Amino acid sequence: MTAEYDALMDFVRETEALAAISGRLEWDQETMMPRGAAPQRGAEMAALEGVLHARRTDPRMGDWLSASEESATDDVARAQLRHIRRSFERTSKVPARLAAEIARVTSETQGIWADARAGDDFETFAPALEKVIALKREEGAALAGDGDLYDAMLQDYEPGTTAADLEAMFGALRPELTDLRAAVREARAPARLTGIFDETAQMRLTRKLAKAFGYDMTHGRVDKAVHPFSSGSGLDVRITTRTSETDPFNCFYSTIHEVGHACYEQNISRGYLLTPLGQGVSMGVHESQSRIYENQLGRSRAFTGWLYGEMRDAFGDFGIPDEESFYGTVNRVSDGYIRTEADELQYNLHVLMRFDLERALVSGDLSVADLEAAWNDRFEADFGYRVDRPANGVLQDVHWAVGLLGYFPTYSLGNVYAGCLHEALRAALPDLDSQLARGETSGATAWLADNVQTHGGLFEPRDVIARARGAEPSEAPLLAYLKEKFTGIYGL
Amino acid sequence: MTAEYDALMDFVRETEALAAISGRLEWDQETMMPRGAAPQRGAEMAALEGVLHARRTDPRMGDWLSASEESATDDVARAQLRHIRRSFERTSKVPARLAAEIARVTSETQGIWADARAGDDFETFAPALEKVIALKREEGAALAGDGDLYDAMLQDYEPGTTAADLEAMFGALRPELTDLRAAVREARAPARLTGIFDETAQMRLTRKLAKAFGYDMTHGRVDKAVHPFSSGSGLDVRITTRTSETDPFNCFYSTIHEVGHACYEQNISRGYLLTPLGQGVSMGVHESQSRIYENQLGRSRAFTGWLYGEMRDAFGDFGIPDEESFYGTVNRVSDGYIRTEADELQYNLHVLMRFDLERALVSGDLSVADLEAAWNDRFEADFGYRVDRPANGVLQDVHWAVGLLGYFPTYSLGNVYAGCLHEALRAALPDLDSQLARGETSGATAWLADNVQTHGGLFEPRDVIARARGAEPSEAPLLAYLKEKFTGIYGL
Repeated sequence: MTAEYDALMDFVRETEALAAISGRLEWDQETMMPRGAAPQRGAEMAALEGVLHARRTDPRMGDWLSASEESATDDVARAQLRHIRRSFERTSKVPARLAAEIARVTSETQGIWADARAGDDFETFAPALEKVIALKREEGAALAGDGDLYDAMLQDYEPGTTAADLEAMFGALRPELTDLRAAVREARAPARLTGIFDETAQMRLTRKLAKAFGYDMTHGRVDKAVHPFSSGSGLDVRITTRTSETDPFNCFYSTIHEVGHACYEQNISRGYLLTPLGQGVSMGVHESQSRIYENQLGRSRAFTGWLYGEMRDAFGDFGIPDEESFYGTVNRVSDGYIRTEADELQYNLHVLMRFDLERALVSGDLSVADLEAAWNDRFEADFGYRVDRPANGVLQDVHWAVGLLGYFPTYSLGNVYAGCLHEALRAALPDLDSQLARGETSGATAWLADNVQTHGGLFEPRDVIARARGAEPSEAPLLAYLKEKFTGIYGL
Repeated sequence: MTAEYDALMDFVRETEALAAISGRLEWDQETMMPRGAAPQRGAEMAALEGVLHARRTDPRMGDWLSASEESATDDVARAQLRHIRRSFERTSKVPARLAAEIARVTSETQGIWADARAGDDFETFAPALEKVIALKREEGAALAGDGDLYDAMLQDYEPGTTAADLEAMFGALRPELTDLRAAVREARAPARLTGIFDETAQMRLTRKLAKAFGYDMTHGRVDKAVHPFSSGSGLDVRITTRTSETDPFNCFYSTIHEVGHACYEQNISRGYLLTPLGQGVSMGVHESQSRIYENQLGRSRAFTGWLYGEMRDAFGDFGIPDEESFYGTVNRVSDGYIRTEADELQYNLHVLMRFDLERALVSGDLSVADLEAAWNDRFEADFGYRVDRPANGVLQDVHWAVGLLGYFPTYSLGNVYAGCLHEALRAALPDLDSQLARGETSGATAWLADNVQTHGGLFEPRDVIARARGAEPSEAPLLAYLKEKFTGIYGL
């Protein structure tokens, strides 16, 4: 490669290293930081953001890019340049004044949202949300040029995917999921989990689960935090989980979910370390990994059979008589308002309604003043019962408050992708269930590492799934899987 | 103030914020980081160092400084400018090539030293140490100009102090300490601590001790690490400690020592946050705080009386019959080779010999080839017995391997300063002992906060002590204190 490409990559590697530091400080903030340190941490993060912004808009980037793009021949270099070009253009298109204003307003709005949710009052949140949406529309317009506003927003999270792509998939999912949901609601539900589960024993088993799913503890660690998350790339990918004495599944499946995210980052080809290729390629593909670990593998009949034994060892008899009942308990579909607590079946209905509502907000077809009513009506139509209060409805998620428009649909896209990968994985590993029944996930995780994770940012998100599946992505496998699973459990 | 001063301070505040991040990552590395993350962390730290170095040598700094120095009128601004000027000149005087070479070689030599110590073999370490000393002499020459090499090195740790100042103090200490040490060695020693002390209970009591000495947990936290240290400034000052099931004093007094360092940082005037004044002013003054907390307060007859009760509550009867015996046990003087394990009396003898040896190395009067023999002879002369192996002698400390020349004497200077402060504190708080006997340190720590800690970098190190004492610093109070204490305990 050319001297310009080398200079560019040296510069970008340093920028990525600094960005990794920023991520590590966010982890610290959620897990270790003393609470009185917040103002100082704010100043530290702002200083680092200033350094990162200056580097990402450094005019030399444009020169190096132009000089390198002409001569790049190998796939890796071309992919690096594609990512760098995209990020450079994105940063350059948005005026610094607007970027700073969005940072300021969303940070403020996050506080307003938290208060509004605590006070169960949408009215106090609405004006702040209006401001955020206006600013994000302005940013979207700067990014979109003549194109579609919402599509431009999507590119931040799912490059190469358009609202039309998603609409086709989600449009096919919605009626089938609402029908299935309605049928399940009429049927006899499996037993709920009851009792008290020691939290120290939960953490012990959760670490065992993390290892069972291939999480590499020499390049990671597990801590408790208010919200489960995965943080970092490459050689240092940390996860958090949480415990509740009455709900050990929350701990275990949060862990398995975050392990899916973390293994993706840990298993990317080491040659891409601290480069744009050295990170998960999109939110959708990331979510496909967390979801397939959590659901298609972790909530399968085979794996829950093994987990049942582990839980009996850890907690003694907890009132569920056998593996088959336990499988039902793990996958029980319960009425509920909250997306993050939703089961596999209802989860996508949550996301689909947010996708439709946020597109309407961005296009101007829906005003913030009408948002609460629109939310409540759509919820009733899809779930079969009414939202009881705003904190359980339109105020439940932080996303819109902090300007994440175009982010929600990647959750369901991740589930669709997980469905595709699961279908291909089953074809490649005919004895997957006998492995999972022994708590053995290495066959499945090695397949995912080889077919998805190792590539990092080498291919476009949709192409990663298409290559692994051997066909274009489609919602069909997810739908077939959900129908078979819940028809079985509920005896429909 | 002028626009130039404001621009300078904005720039410096951002630099300090970035430097604080670097410190936080070092903490993470010693406490939380997964061990496989080391290479990635190395790249992250190098990128951040690059940013810091570019900022610290930014030519605008020189312009802003010159423009501001002419017009600075108030004390705070003048002190800020003094610190900024000193650091700017220092960074500018050392060629970037030399700074990078020192960083590279000392990092390498740290590994060589660790292996040599493990293998108990000075020969494998000697050539690496020679390289380090040659490079540090080159750096010293760049800094010293026509002045003394070693004095130039001292300025990095103790601005305003010269080798001649130290020689006067240490020269007066040495014969008195060796005499006292010899007399103690002949006398009947107090009982040693024996038994097993639960490590969880140690950590519980160590947190209580940290709070008892005024450590602010909303702006700090206590973790376990291989080496006890304090890290950070301002609103986020974290400490580490360690536990050994047979040696709870190691845990408790490491904690109190680090709390002394940490409280200094926590108690600096908040108006200096993220500026050069917002940090402890020198290593010597820092050590005066850790030492007075640990020794003059923590190992006093009065405080150990309270600690005796706390330890009985935590561990039951551990074989020491009463407070008076416990006071002897805490302050027992034992033969030993290792500086970091030394008691109050022998500790300074360790430092004094390193001070003399390192000056001889820097001046060229002593060659590295002769260092081991010189060490062993001096040790025998001052301690009364011979070093048994290099790991217990010349290889015990990492300092020289990583280029810390001029650092050792600040340990004893800190003890001398602690002696001065203790004398003044006793005069100001006549009923100090009755407070300490109740485990109440707030009178003493408030006096130290008001007279030393709050000032941060406002005054020169020696002036901080002179103002608090109301007289120039001297070794006399330390010596009088040690003589009285050990004469009493050993019935001399």
